[in-house]
Amino acid sequence: MVGADKAIEAVAECAAVGIPVAIVGASGFAEAGAAELQTKLLEVAGDTRILGPNCIGTVNLGTGLVASFSPFFNGEHTELKKGGIALISQSGALGFGAVSLALERGLGLGWAVTTGNEADVTALEVLTELAGEPDCTGLLGYVESLTDGVALRKLAARGKPTALLVAGRSTAGRRAAVSHTGTLAGDVRVTKAALRQLGIVEVSDVDELLDVGEAFAMAGRRSRKAGMEAAQGVGTGPDTARGLGKRVAVVTTSGGSGILAADAIEDWGLLLATLSPRTDRELRVVVPPYGSTQNPVDVTATVMRDRTLVVRCLHAVAADDGVDAILLCFCVLTGEDVDGIIAALTEVAVTKPVFVARTGAEHLAPGTTEALRALGIPSYPTPARAVRALSALVAGLGAGSEDYPGQSGQLAPKITVSDEGALKGMLAEAGITVPYGHFLDSPADFDFPGRAVFKAVVPGLVHKTEAGGVLLGVTRDMAEEAWAKIAALGGRVWAEEHIEGGVELLVGIAPSPLGRVLTISAGGILAEVLDDVAIRLLPTDPAGMLEELKINILLNGYRGKPPLDVAAFLKVVRTFTALAERWPADAVVELNPVLVREHGAVVLDAAYVEENRR
Amino acid sequence: MVGADKAIEAVAECAAVGIPVAIVGASGFAEAGAAELQTKLLEVAGDTRILGPNCIGTVNLGTGLVASFSPFFNGEHTELKKGGIALISQSGALGFGAVSLALERGLGLGWAVTTGNEADVTALEVLTELAGEPDCTGLLGYVESLTDGVALRKLAARGKPTALLVAGRSTAGRRAAVSHTGTLAGDVRVTKAALRQLGIVEVSDVDELLDVGEAFAMAGRRSRKAGMEAAQGVGTGPDTARGLGKRVAVVTTSGGSGILAADAIEDWGLLLATLSPRTDRELRVVVPPYGSTQNPVDVTATVMRDRTLVVRCLHAVAADDGVDAILLCFCVLTGEDVDGIIAALTEVAVTKPVFVARTGAEHLAPGTTEALRALGIPSYPTPARAVRALSALVAGLGAGSEDYPGQSGQLAPKITVSDEGALKGMLAEAGITVPYGHFLDSPADFDFPGRAVFKAVVPGLVHKTEAGGVLLGVTRDMAEEAWAKIAALGGRVWAEEHIEGGVELLVGIAPSPLGRVLTISAGGILAEVLDDVAIRLLPTDPAGMLEELKINILLNGYRGKPPLDVAAFLKVVRTFTALAERWPADAVVELNPVLVREHGAVVLDAAYVEENRR
Repeated sequence: MVGADKAIEAVAECAAVGIPVAIVGASGFAEAGAAELQTKLLEVAGDTRILGPNCIGTVNLGTGLVASFSPFFNGEHTELKKGGIALISQSGALGFGAVSLALERGLGLGWAVTTGNEADVTALEVLTELAGEPDCTGLLGYVESLTDGVALRKLAARGKPTALLVAGRSTAGRRAAVSHTGTLAGDVRVTKAALRQLGIVEVSDVDELLDVGEAFAMAGRRSRKAGMEAAQGVGTGPDTARGLGKRVAVVTTSGGSGILAADAIEDWGLLLATLSPRTDRELRVVVPPYGSTQNPVDVTATVMRDRTLVVRCLHAVAADDGVDAILLCFCVLTGEDVDGIIAALTEVAVTKPVFVARTGAEHLAPGTTEALRALGIPSYPTPARAVRALSALVAGLGAGSEDYPGQSGQLAPKITVSDEGALKGMLAEAGITVPYGHFLDSPADFDFPGRAVFKAVVPGLVHKTEAGGVLLGVTRDMAEEAWAKIAALGGRVWAEEHIEGGVELLVGIAPSPLGRVLTISAGGILAEVLDDVAIRLLPTDPAGMLEELKINILLNGYRGKPPLDVAAFLKVVRTFTALAERWPADAVVELNPVLVREHGAVVLDAAYVEENRR
Repeated sequence: MVGADKAIEAVAECAAVGIPVAIVGASGFAEAGAAELQTKLLEVAGDTRILGPNCIGTVNLGTGLVASFSPFFNGEHTELKKGGIALISQSGALGFGAVSLALERGLGLGWAVTTGNEADVTALEVLTELAGEPDCTGLLGYVESLTDGVALRKLAARGKPTALLVAGRSTAGRRAAVSHTGTLAGDVRVTKAALRQLGIVEVSDVDELLDVGEAFAMAGRRSRKAGMEAAQGVGTGPDTARGLGKRVAVVTTSGGSGILAADAIEDWGLLLATLSPRTDRELRVVVPPYGSTQNPVDVTATVMRDRTLVVRCLHAVAADDGVDAILLCFCVLTGEDVDGIIAALTEVAVTKPVFVARTGAEHLAPGTTEALRALGIPSYPTPARAVRALSALVAGLGAGSEDYPGQSGQLAPKITVSDEGALKGMLAEAGITVPYGHFLDSPADFDFPGRAVFKAVVPGLVHKTEAGGVLLGVTRDMAEEAWAKIAALGGRVWAEEHIEGGVELLVGIAPSPLGRVLTISAGGILAEVLDDVAIRLLPTDPAGMLEELKINILLNGYRGKPPLDVAAFLKVVRTFTALAERWPADAVVELNPVLVREHGAVVLDAAYVEENRR
């Protein structure tokens, strides 16, 4: 609680007497351009860990420890409600703003920590530590820099439902992030891909973060009730080896809410459950003719005349083995109608996770949110928000399912590949098919039975095509003229057989703040035109990446053509990424295009760029 | 207030005594498969307009008329707050749910109307009528069917800010919509494109609808204050001929909020204003060194020590001519700090629209939302929600700016085009370039100087390529064999010069529930692979559609190539759509590919499918 000028001395005093952690709230360090002051702070800290500087401290709601100067605690009516959710924020003001909104809506928290400039302790480290707390059911984070791939994998490996709001997605946002906490944001697309790969939920706003937190809180409660470990999840389904399945049954008293729920279920990658014939029969007895027994099950406003309708519908769908979770939607129901629903849910919610979308003012049925919460049922003002939170729970309970293969071994001695021929030779040696080719010191050496491709190999010339350094379809007759044209560019002439037919893909490796990434996209000229890219942190297996690409439909027998040899392509990718482990960490290597054919896959062009040019 | 069985008689009685409008709440009509009952209802109604059936009625909050059986009015604490926003919903329960949430957050409404099955009166008609009310500042709608293009254009032409939540975007959602109100939803992509084209804001959830409503409400208030017509908007900017400009200055006490605001500004197509050197100088005096004078302007938590900081920053950015609107972000500020901000805003909000993002619990500074509302300043819990609402105001104030060219004239006598040759002939006659070509009754008639394309013309054969009915690069030597191959498919052989080089685009017209639409996309094989499509309702001018396509970058001098002849391409599109006015309304005609070249654009293939095959 001293300014930047006095903080160095204060931390040195802490270190001297063996204080394990010092919280530095002061601003005026890296975020103000004073990086050297921040370095100094770390130097004097010695074994004392530093939270901050430029943070607003930390609160443990379980023990009641408040080590923060947030004005939140000035609030006359501020009440701390204990719960199982940890909320970690790099931003102090926004973090405690989110804490206040969480408590206002009744979402109990266990821990709130702000990390500020993260000179030492990072949000990822705090999240990972808290994930190990038995009482912690889920983790929420606001981060401005996400640049440590190893830490991110460690967090994911904990298998605790985790959601992150990553700020600084835009150019201006990134600039502001640097100015705010002096840290650098990562590449947006890599960040998104890495989070998805690791089962960490990405959210786009504070509201959404807290909505997801409500679902995580319920997951923990339900798990304990069922005598299971929190991390093991709340049910099983067809699409996840563990955790919660994706098949949702919607029961609604409002047709409109049902449609919005169905739309959201598609948007968020969940499945509208197909109800069994038995369930359908049971529903037909209950649901009025102007309603619907198909999912979404619409019991209509008739519920106001017969309260048992909802109850019987809920029991029917809960007993259906094809249903993993239930979303109940209602709108402006009041008093006793709502009481009846809550009574019904008391039984149903034990067997299947239930989420509620109640699109109506709180005063119409006061206390409903709290009553539902007591049953382990999160409720939301709209169907879309409920579905989004449910989808996060499904994803979050699947976190940590990707095996963490550890760091790849020590990098082998740096290799240097000076030209396309040498790189293709290396690929061929590893078993990857490349066109037959060689340097052509004279046009007389032309020895291709059909057409050939001539390429200029000039040190530093990366964009050959633009420079006129690639000639396709060269026949023996054209060889002399073509050779002269390419040779005139000042380097050597590489010649290889001209292979056509198939679909062109790009395969690349490149460094990123989160570690080396593998990219697969449409190849050739389309690579840079289309935003059709699959990205994964390495190590990983490329199976499944093609399904993320629009161009994938061309690989599987498009317009009457035979399916292409995807297995051969994946083998190329696996061999390539294995090779890459021996290359320098900052290597950017692109195979573009890789021609996927009916039989086999051929690397037509390969470029090695040591310096990261992204 | 009678059931379906008695409704027919009741409406007949209304008609007999000249009641102008009857509201039919009963279910059991088209939504329950009883379309004939709904037809009967309309028959007996005569000149009596019908609202419903299967609706929950209507409320005029200005006059206090409640003609509804919504349980919302059972609420003990239900208070009707009058305002300038109209909320129209096809769904009754969801509509009144939204009404209750609007009033709960303090958003005053003027009218709430539910339209149910829309046997007669539609949501679009009600919206259009209410847009003409002088006290109406903005329109919000929930619709499940959007199939009347003329009505949609009429609504847009009113120029009143309008936002629609269109349900039934997913397959399951559309099915549920049919079951709910018995109406058919339109094509999702056409709907989205049409709304954007007409300046109607599309939202994806009820919350978002109400967030946007808050902005529309303020627009009206500000307009009256400034003595302007509501429809004229609240300022001017560089990007809109009228209405509100896009350049936003963000002033924040929380760095995190500033970053989230910058991200959202990019997401929603607004611009982070570049502050003038003069503003920068003024801010440098005020903002502490660990803050930021660049937009987003971060005054930091120091505001708690010196309340005048925010005030001075706000005055500085409000005076900057490069700023169209201001977003003020703060989080957990309490009591007097907030009072100071509100006092400052009292002056600033007169000159520029101000939106507030306050990410903190209400109890920290009770009454803030209402105090801001009294100043004409909408406030939101997160920066992203504030920015989204501001972007909707910008779009909404620009509504109606597209000239309504009226219906195109009477369709000329139906034409029939039996084959590709005849269609291309018609295009050529209109001045569109097509390859030189003719039917080839014998391979001996081959008269092409270079290579040719042979195509099968077989009645009913639409997908020629898949059937092996297209041969490229046919030379004189190959003509005999190629002719036999194509002729074997059972039709005639069309031959034309083989033109290569350039970028392939697709241009199509097709009917839709909203009227005829023009589609431009990547052409050739990519047309169906890539989701890279620009769509507009006709009549329209195609200028600007290319900018929506990713493939557009290939047209403007990609990788050192010369820019292609976009003007010639647009001329093809204009000629084509003019021709199409003479064709039957259900015609589906595709020019695919149109080859855009360095000089000119050539239609390589054209197909006419009378029946709509989408």
